[in-house]
Amino acid sequence: MVTYSQITDAHQRLTEVVINTPVIESVSINKQLGGRVLFKVEALQRTGSFKFRGAYNKISQLAQNSDSGIVAYSSGNHAQGVALAASLFNLPATIIMPADSPRIKINNTKALGGEVILYDRYTQSREEIGQTLAQEGNLALVKPYDDLDIIAGQGTAGLEASHQLDKLGLKPDQVIVPCGGGGLIAGTSIAMHKHFPKAKIWAAEPEHYDDAKRSLAAGVRVSNNANQPSLCDSIVTPTPGELTFPIMQAHLEGGLVVSEEQVLQAMASCMQELKVVIEPGGCAGLAALFAGLLPTQNKTTLVILSGGNADPDILARSLKHK
Amino acid sequence: MVTYSQITDAHQRLTEVVINTPVIESVSINKQLGGRVLFKVEALQRTGSFKFRGAYNKISQLAQNSDSGIVAYSSGNHAQGVALAASLFNLPATIIMPADSPRIKINNTKALGGEVILYDRYTQSREEIGQTLAQEGNLALVKPYDDLDIIAGQGTAGLEASHQLDKLGLKPDQVIVPCGGGGLIAGTSIAMHKHFPKAKIWAAEPEHYDDAKRSLAAGVRVSNNANQPSLCDSIVTPTPGELTFPIMQAHLEGGLVVSEEQVLQAMASCMQELKVVIEPGGCAGLAALFAGLLPTQNKTTLVILSGGNADPDILARSLKHK
Repeated sequence: MVTYSQITDAHQRLTEVVINTPVIESVSINKQLGGRVLFKVEALQRTGSFKFRGAYNKISQLAQNSDSGIVAYSSGNHAQGVALAASLFNLPATIIMPADSPRIKINNTKALGGEVILYDRYTQSREEIGQTLAQEGNLALVKPYDDLDIIAGQGTAGLEASHQLDKLGLKPDQVIVPCGGGGLIAGTSIAMHKHFPKAKIWAAEPEHYDDAKRSLAAGVRVSNNANQPSLCDSIVTPTPGELTFPIMQAHLEGGLVVSEEQVLQAMASCMQELKVVIEPGGCAGLAALFAGLLPTQNKTTLVILSGGNADPDILARSLKHK
Repeated sequence: MVTYSQITDAHQRLTEVVINTPVIESVSINKQLGGRVLFKVEALQRTGSFKFRGAYNKISQLAQNSDSGIVAYSSGNHAQGVALAASLFNLPATIIMPADSPRIKINNTKALGGEVILYDRYTQSREEIGQTLAQEGNLALVKPYDDLDIIAGQGTAGLEASHQLDKLGLKPDQVIVPCGGGGLIAGTSIAMHKHFPKAKIWAAEPEHYDDAKRSLAAGVRVSNNANQPSLCDSIVTPTPGELTFPIMQAHLEGGLVVSEEQVLQAMASCMQELKVVIEPGGCAGLAALFAGLLPTQNKTTLVILSGGNADPDILARSLKHK
C-alpha cells in the first residue's frame, strides 16, 4: 500500500519541476449542473498530462543508483512523462507504444528524446516486449501504474487539489477521476481522503472498457473482452493494476461508464466553457456528470481532467457537438 | 498617468476574486522558436479574458458610493467582465455590443445577468449610445479602456506575470501584448517595467487595424480607415485611447501586425501545444512570433494570451492549420 507520507515525499521531490496545475470552474457549467464543479486541469501539466508526476518521482530515485537507460510501455501519456523525466537526468529512454496511438503522442515522445518502438495493441503484449527489452539492454522498466513510486507521484495531483480546495474554503462531496490502470485514482484517493475523509470517489471509464467498475462490484480484478478501438486511448487497459486495485477497493464508491458521444460533448464544453483542450479519456469525468450518472444539485464536485493530448481531427469532431 | 501603486492597490482589491492565471510554456514551441517563450493565459481568467480585472477594480469602487446601475459598451469581453463584476455587487448592467459579436460572447454576457443591446458596428457609434443611456437612466458608464481604474485593473495581469517570472528566476527580454484600445498593454507595461526595466514591450495587432503601430510611429493618435470585419474582434478599435496612448508612448517599442492566417495558425498551436483555447485577438502575440516579427533565438519572451472566447466554427477553422 502507498501511504500519505509517500505522496508528500513525492510532492517534495516534484515541487520545483511540476506545474501546480490550476483548479478552475465555469459559471455556465455550474448552472447547467446545479452545483459547484471544480476542475483540476492536468492537461496543463508538463507533457500535457499528469503522467510526468509519477515518471519523475520514479526516475529521480532510479537515477541516484544507476545510469542505465529506461524502458517503458505506454498508450502515449506515460511515454511523454517518462521521456521528459529521463531526459532531465540524461538517461536514454526507449518507449513501446501502440501503433494506433494519437500522432501527437508519438511525435511528442520523439521530440522529448524518447526512442519509440511501435507494437500492435490487439495482437502483441506490451508487457512481454518491455520485459524482453529490459533484460536484453539492462534497462530499468518504468511501469505505467503498477509501481508504488508511480502511484505516489500521481497522487501529488490529488494532494495539490486538496490544498487548492482548502484555500477556496471548499470540501468536495464527490471526486471523479478518469481510470485506466488506476495509478492516478489510487494515489489521488489516498491524498483526498486524508484531507476530506467523507468525499465519495468515483472512477470514470469508457464503454467497453469498464473493468474498474466491474472489478469493484465483483470484489476481484476482472478483464475487458473488448477488442475494438476506443476514442479514450489513455484509459483503455485490460484490467485494474495488481497494486492499484486494493487501493481502489479501499477508497472508491465504484465506476461510472460513459459513451463516446458523451465524451465528445464534454470535450466541446471544456473548450467552450473552460478554455482548455482535454483529450477524450481525460474528459470521462465531466462526461459522466453531463450523463447524469451522479447527482450534482447543491453539491461540490471535483473533476480531474487528466490530459490534453488529442489530435486535431478529434478536436474538430468534438466541436460539432456545440 | 497610472502609477505602479495604483496597480498594486488594484491587486489587493482583486486578490480574492480573480484567478492568478498560470504562466505556461511548451517544449515544442520553445524548440521551434529557439528561445524560451512564456505564456500568461488570461483565457483562464473568470469570464474567459483579462477584462474582469479592470471591470471589478472599477465597479467595486463605484459600488461604495452608488447603487445606480452600470452601462458599458464592448466587443464582448469587457461586456462579460462588467456583467460579472456588476452582479457581484448586485448592480444591474446594460451592455451595448456589436450585432456581429461572437455568439459565445453575447450568450455569456446574458448568462452573467447583463441586459444586452445590439448595435451595428459599422454605422452606429457605441460611445453615443452609451452616453445617451447613461444620462437617461442615471447609469454609471464603465468604459472599456479610457479609465484609470480600468487600466490599473488590467495591469494586475502584468503584475502577476512579473511575480511569476521572478519565481521562475527569469527576466523577460521582450513582452508582447494584444492591443485594441490599449488598456491591457498600458497597465501591463507599467507593472512589467517596474520589475524588468529593460524589457522591450510590443503591441500585437491585426492587419487593417494597426492604429497602435502607426500612432506610435507618428507620435500622435491616428485612426484606422478599415471598415471590414476582422477575425480579431476583441482588438478591433478605431484608435488608441486618450489615456492609454501616452502610457504606450512612454513604454512601448512599437506595434507588430499579423494576418488572419497567422492568427489561425497560432490558435491551432495554442490548442495543440499549450492545451488552451485562445480567441483570434488573444493570439496575436504568438502569431507575431511565428511570423518572425521579433527575434526569439536565445531570448526570453513573455506573451500574453488575453482571452479565449471563440465560437466553435472559428476553432474548427484554426484546427485545419495543423
